Amino acid sequence: MANKRLGEQSIVFSNPPSIAGFACTAGKKEGEGPLADSFDYINIDSYWGEKSWEKAESAMQKQAFTLAASKAGISSAAIQYIFAGDLLNQCIGSVFGLMDSAIPFFGIFGACSTMAEGIALAAMSIDGGFADTVSASTSSHFCTAERQFRFPLEYGGQRPPSAQWTVTGAGSVILTAQGEGPYITHVTTGKMVDYGITDANNMGAAMAPAAYDTLSTHFSDTGISPTDYDLIVTGDLGAVGHSIVLDFFKEDDMDLSANYNDCGLMVYSREQKNVNSGGSGCGCSAVVLTGHILNGMKSGRWNKVLFAGTGALMSTTSSQQGGTIPSVCHAVTISNMK
Amino acid sequence: MANKRLGEQSIVFSNPPSIAGFACTAGKKEGEGPLADSFDYINIDSYWGEKSWEKAESAMQKQAFTLAASKAGISSAAIQYIFAGDLLNQCIGSVFGLMDSAIPFFGIFGACSTMAEGIALAAMSIDGGFADTVSASTSSHFCTAERQFRFPLEYGGQRPPSAQWTVTGAGSVILTAQGEGPYITHVTTGKMVDYGITDANNMGAAMAPAAYDTLSTHFSDTGISPTDYDLIVTGDLGAVGHSIVLDFFKEDDMDLSANYNDCGLMVYSREQKNVNSGGSGCGCSAVVLTGHILNGMKSGRWNKVLFAGTGALMSTTSSQQGGTIPSVCHAVTISNMK
Repeated sequence: MANKRLGEQSIVFSNPPSIAGFACTAGKKEGEGPLADSFDYINIDSYWGEKSWEKAESAMQKQAFTLAASKAGISSAAIQYIFAGDLLNQCIGSVFGLMDSAIPFFGIFGACSTMAEGIALAAMSIDGGFADTVSASTSSHFCTAERQFRFPLEYGGQRPPSAQWTVTGAGSVILTAQGEGPYITHVTTGKMVDYGITDANNMGAAMAPAAYDTLSTHFSDTGISPTDYDLIVTGDLGAVGHSIVLDFFKEDDMDLSANYNDCGLMVYSREQKNVNSGGSGCGCSAVVLTGHILNGMKSGRWNKVLFAGTGALMSTTSSQQGGTIPSVCHAVTISNMK
Repeated sequence: MANKRLGEQSIVFSNPPSIAGFACTAGKKEGEGPLADSFDYINIDSYWGEKSWEKAESAMQKQAFTLAASKAGISSAAIQYIFAGDLLNQCIGSVFGLMDSAIPFFGIFGACSTMAEGIALAAMSIDGGFADTVSASTSSHFCTAERQFRFPLEYGGQRPPSAQWTVTGAGSVILTAQGEGPYITHVTTGKMVDYGITDANNMGAAMAPAAYDTLSTHFSDTGISPTDYDLIVTGDLGAVGHSIVLDFFKEDDMDLSANYNDCGLMVYSREQKNVNSGGSGCGCSAVVLTGHILNGMKSGRWNKVLFAGTGALMSTTSSQQGGTIPSVCHAVTISNMK
């Protein structure tokens, strides 16, 4: 048993699960960004043809999941588990998006780290011998997140420079026990980290310590050096959080600037209106992974990627009661080689 | 690999994880109920000494987890993962209750099925070879649930007979790879089931079809007959849902009345004021399992129990938009024999 564990928080798979299919759907603003060409589907209608933004988010997630299965050439009936969740209260984006799938459902909550958490658990369920074919899916929507966490959109609230823009998008991956890769080879599961940040308009600063904690633990647990990776990406730290992570590593005499990026910085160009510090939301790392990154791995642009989803674990209630913003980061190694 | 899978939705563990420790904390009303003697701790203060009910719920969950580890004789540092979640928006009951634990954290969302989902995933992480010692924890609080899902308590809303009373309580279990039992031997993971119920005051009716679906699948997948169990319990169907499940099985010519009960029926006596159809909430099945049932298994009253957590996957937003209440049920076999 112990041979799958590495250090304090990491595991290595004995038979790395393969990513058999992946897909994403994205909204108008994301479709105007630099990664637009990598998205499977872009919809300029924020309602996705539905009657509410929440129903639109569910429709997006259903579409991403259906496309991922289709691209993998796998029927829904062959998928043995779905791990899914999102930021909406009680994860209704995933529930109503996937409830017709008739697939055994493990609901998860990792805030914006959900894509990484889902891939980690899906890979564990396969390598543990419990399934051959498993999906991980998630979504976010600017309009549902804004009105749930901040203000009604009609209010036109001002946003400080540190604020981020919730990505409208959904991503889904299908993992299989056998396949041609890319493979999930390692997982480092994050602890909750709390540096006392209470500003919900500065999520990047709140999540950066969790990202640093998990990344540095990953390197020491696994013995994989940062330079062994072609690309290291965090989920949605944005400009503020990304620079904090670089600073933390500089204090350890490690320079990550050559190959470390953040999905929140990649999904929009800095010229796009109102994105401020960058993208955020479960959909942020999900669409960058299932669009840009996995297509880039398939084409050989990158062979070894560390995908580190980041999540801010707060609610409007905890914020209104003066609570801090504990955060978590789960890191998953994705490699073209087993 | 395939030898761990049974039928469509079930798995059998090759080395069944052992329940090394379990504990629960409960509130005043639960402490006046028939299972009071089985609870580790009862607090008549709904604030648990904290400044808000949400903080009280977190304090309860922290206490249950700490007690479970202590009763298992296991230090927090030896616990390799926690699987936890709850019904509060963004699972803040678990986040703020467990964030100081410094244990790798997998947030889960299964609504009131969370205790069963957590045990299932914790057992899979151990039997899959990824950990030796893992916790599953959850909580609910009448006052936090009521004001989040229904009305401010000061409003004094009337409750129909089909309504249930959210249990104030938290439960935690510690699973280990080796131990003296009781053991987790099988898991049947539920699909989302939706029969179109939209009445949030009739959760039992909404969840009963999911319970029937998972229980009947469990029996056919595993070949274990209902009469092989000393006790079959659903999570929180209450009187209405419990009778619907019995009716569903009667249509299959199966009489479950001799050994089938529901945690929502067990946690309160029908004479207690306002409990109406019975208890509900993540804490309902959690305190009945970690109080009454596991102590009963330890004393030999029951040797083989099917613990089937039930969850209603809705939010106030989905209800306000006319959405149905999809539900899920995860079943876990707990046995004194491997």
